[in-house]
Amino acid sequence: MQIVALNAPLDHRPTVDDFRLVEASMPICPDQGVLVQVTAISLDPYVGSRLRGRHMGEPAPRPLLEPIPGGIVGRVFQSRADGFAEGDIVHSMEGGWAEYVALPAHAVRRLARAGQALAVPLSAYLGVLGMPGLTAWAGITQLAKVGKGDVVLVDAAAGSVGGTAGQLARLAGASRVIGIAGGPEKCAEVVGTYGFDACVDYKAEGWREALKVALPDGLSVFFENVSAEMAMIALLHARPYARGVLCGLVDAYHTASPSAHALNAGLIIGKRANLHGLVVYDFYDRWDAFLDEISPQVASGRVRFIEDKVTGLAQAPALFERLMVGGNIGKCVVELGAVQ
Amino acid sequence: MQIVALNAPLDHRPTVDDFRLVEASMPICPDQGVLVQVTAISLDPYVGSRLRGRHMGEPAPRPLLEPIPGGIVGRVFQSRADGFAEGDIVHSMEGGWAEYVALPAHAVRRLARAGQALAVPLSAYLGVLGMPGLTAWAGITQLAKVGKGDVVLVDAAAGSVGGTAGQLARLAGASRVIGIAGGPEKCAEVVGTYGFDACVDYKAEGWREALKVALPDGLSVFFENVSAEMAMIALLHARPYARGVLCGLVDAYHTASPSAHALNAGLIIGKRANLHGLVVYDFYDRWDAFLDEISPQVASGRVRFIEDKVTGLAQAPALFERLMVGGNIGKCVVELGAVQ
Repeated sequence: MQIVALNAPLDHRPTVDDFRLVEASMPICPDQGVLVQVTAISLDPYVGSRLRGRHMGEPAPRPLLEPIPGGIVGRVFQSRADGFAEGDIVHSMEGGWAEYVALPAHAVRRLARAGQALAVPLSAYLGVLGMPGLTAWAGITQLAKVGKGDVVLVDAAAGSVGGTAGQLARLAGASRVIGIAGGPEKCAEVVGTYGFDACVDYKAEGWREALKVALPDGLSVFFENVSAEMAMIALLHARPYARGVLCGLVDAYHTASPSAHALNAGLIIGKRANLHGLVVYDFYDRWDAFLDEISPQVASGRVRFIEDKVTGLAQAPALFERLMVGGNIGKCVVELGAVQ
Repeated sequence: MQIVALNAPLDHRPTVDDFRLVEASMPICPDQGVLVQVTAISLDPYVGSRLRGRHMGEPAPRPLLEPIPGGIVGRVFQSRADGFAEGDIVHSMEGGWAEYVALPAHAVRRLARAGQALAVPLSAYLGVLGMPGLTAWAGITQLAKVGKGDVVLVDAAAGSVGGTAGQLARLAGASRVIGIAGGPEKCAEVVGTYGFDACVDYKAEGWREALKVALPDGLSVFFENVSAEMAMIALLHARPYARGVLCGLVDAYHTASPSAHALNAGLIIGKRANLHGLVVYDFYDRWDAFLDEISPQVASGRVRFIEDKVTGLAQAPALFERLMVGGNIGKCVVELGAVQ
């Protein structure tokens, strides 16, 4: 079977040339585990950090030996675990860029029993109903506790986390949801597909002025997904006592400069802001609650999602490079084949 | 009557030479206001910032014309306001370094009617029962919501805000209260008078190691009173989901460098910290609730306070210079005379 692996240890923002398609031996199904045939792989920004061994203390994969880590959905090919049967449709955060992955049962969530149908496309469990969706849900509903009348600003709004965050804010009663995204195409999706009230293109001239216009009465919540610098821009528009969620700062994954992480304490105090650091891992034990709440909304089309999808393992590196520079629109997914 | 005024507009950390004792005409009691004979004046760090016109948009006093601003307690000398009578004992945040101040009634709080006794010394209403105490109360009870079992770190712990914060944390159920202060004398007061479990002297060699020893299981709450840099040190010891209160950053009042205000967003996220900006002005409408709750504790000696007291207006500048460099121990108070 094939995997995608690193060519060499990484010390820079990864590009397509850092990866190689490698032939690997079929993994062995462990005791109390399952062997999963991968249907689709999630590409996520945090992986760029993890490849450099800089993500929450997790090790980088060993070049040429291990698949690039990533969430997957797939079909149980072999089971040695109670509660899992061949043909079950499953999700795991501990998969990788590979045709098959061997996983301990505790790292696997069953989405459907063999033969059962899902109410949403399987790949949705990588994005809007996967870790990105859980991240958005945690920030909007569990930390910022968005409610009636909130004015919410979300950046990286065309992405899976940001796009879902804005929609969940609306569901929670926000009166106004504003996005920030890069380029007119992304902004059009944020408004057209996700239903934000407005989206400001940070690559356009005068965008700071446009943000001001979009937030005439300031904001009461911001969901920060990009950088400390963007958080500071959001704070400038914050009403007193605004709540802010600081989530994985994508920009900072690829810079060693401390100033890239710097928040101004004086501004936080001046605004009486209430900031929450968000690490999605902490919410894994609420994943079921999240799915119970949000999957019906996705099935009904009330919460929408956009995918940037390629087919075949060999396409993963190019899509990942695009993700690393923000060239994707929506959730990056690599589909492996016809299983479903 | 005499006032203390600025010699000239200020662009540096104030020292004794920046002030002058000036003869001024007696202020006129305004309609719906009172003329107060000042008994004691509060010297506060924020005034250092205000003198430079850099505090929350408030104007600096005009050199030689206006008293240095400050909280006062005193006795109503003349009243033209309903509800105030000659001889009433009052407090105001809008006084100044002067023998008499004229104030609108809404800026004055009556502490006792003429002839009534107070359960605590009058100057306590400048410190532990004044704005510093309210600041500590707001941070500990209203924002961080300290409760049973919390481990609380407070810096500038020998000061009025810090010392009160630690004691209120203990009253609220904290299992361990650790202070940071500068020098062995201050640290001895923090432990001996305020009853903290330990106090780390940040001027001593190896203090970072000592802090680690004092917090073997980390902290769940920190009350930051000094600088963003100290907040970052506190955060290094934070347990996941620790709450932090960011209060007036004394150090930053005298520096223009943005890095002095810089908080590391990555550390905030990594610790899942919940940070609150605190501006005490927002809690002025809860001042009565604060006094109802805390003044009995002060009267009974359960909450203690330390004063660094001088007598006579002419001594105010030297004490203020000392305060600006952290040379004071406890609340800085200037007593004006025998009125009580």
